[in-house]
Amino acid sequence: MKFFDCIHAPSPRRTRMLIAEKGLDIETIEVDLATGGQFNPEFSAINPSMTVPVLLLDDGTALTENSGIAVYLEALHPDPPMLGSSAKEKALVATWNDRCVFEGFSAIAESYRNFSKFFAGRSITGPQKFPQVPDLIERGRSRAQQFFSQLDERLGQSPFVAGDRFTMADISALCVVDFAQRIKLEVGEDQTQLKRWHQEVSARPSAKL
Amino acid sequence: MKFFDCIHAPSPRRTRMLIAEKGLDIETIEVDLATGGQFNPEFSAINPSMTVPVLLLDDGTALTENSGIAVYLEALHPDPPMLGSSAKEKALVATWNDRCVFEGFSAIAESYRNFSKFFAGRSITGPQKFPQVPDLIERGRSRAQQFFSQLDERLGQSPFVAGDRFTMADISALCVVDFAQRIKLEVGEDQTQLKRWHQEVSARPSAKL
Repeated sequence: MKFFDCIHAPSPRRTRMLIAEKGLDIETIEVDLATGGQFNPEFSAINPSMTVPVLLLDDGTALTENSGIAVYLEALHPDPPMLGSSAKEKALVATWNDRCVFEGFSAIAESYRNFSKFFAGRSITGPQKFPQVPDLIERGRSRAQQFFSQLDERLGQSPFVAGDRFTMADISALCVVDFAQRIKLEVGEDQTQLKRWHQEVSARPSAKL
Repeated sequence: MKFFDCIHAPSPRRTRMLIAEKGLDIETIEVDLATGGQFNPEFSAINPSMTVPVLLLDDGTALTENSGIAVYLEALHPDPPMLGSSAKEKALVATWNDRCVFEGFSAIAESYRNFSKFFAGRSITGPQKFPQVPDLIERGRSRAQQFFSQLDERLGQSPFVAGDRFTMADISALCVVDFAQRIKLEVGEDQTQLKRWHQEVSARPSAKL
């Protein structure tokens, strides 16, 4: 099994933290997105979508989404449970993971990739080339702000995102909040619950990786 | 438990089909998106994101994403398994569900919601109002076409999307392909594997709902 990572990218950080939280030792290969490592023919043959993370299984199957990788590692290494134990906890972890991706990551990426010169001509990940759309810079930022408010409200209801303990939903949300630094979006002074939680989860050893 | 559905919408169709495939009888409430039923205060109190599907649990917890609803129903009613049995099958179902959402649904919605007069001023679901961005009409269509090609290639490798049997990944992909009719995108004549699969899964009773 091999984990294709990129130390500077927000998305594979989710898998990196999950591996650390489960205490697993998996061979890790760095794909340097800063120098176009994802376009390398060897890597794009493994993942034609040219994104990280990828978990390459020994039979050659490439798992190319955080969701699939998490489900796989949870099935093989159920302790500590990171995707929930009861039906309801499992459902809330899945729900918040999805919200983090749709309302968090995708909003920030929308703002960042349409603004940064680094992404000129490739506002969407993958092999297709799409020009930047300036109208999306503010829209993405506004959506991300709305998601921060949702997270703050949620964290007033429970200590962690999906309930009483640290799960994959907290990993996803932490990666969203930290990714937002790229668009200079910080936790608001009045978002006291989000701030309390962010300090707490940022102190975990897995968050330092 | 109550299921908030909208018979004309592509996203809650995924939960509707899952409920049918599992043979469950769940009280269903129609939210008429055509007349703004999602903005009704009673519904938006249940789901502030104002989207369907929602599965409202008896303790008042609202599951507002297909992913969370599927995990919940699978945990309570494991037969027939719709999210996979082995670690690898579970991972592939989760991976393809995600691809269907990111590369399928979101691409089609990007094209459709920025084109249709019905969505003027609300190019994104939810309470925030965002103007349409005409540049996204073609971009979304192009991304959806690319996803159809990916699905066709995948279905040349296995009879169903995630492997040897019908799973939630097939439900998701069927809902994507049928949603694409809104942007007049049909399965290509040369996409023989996608065509074969689409005919087969469309014949299931759950697909008629």
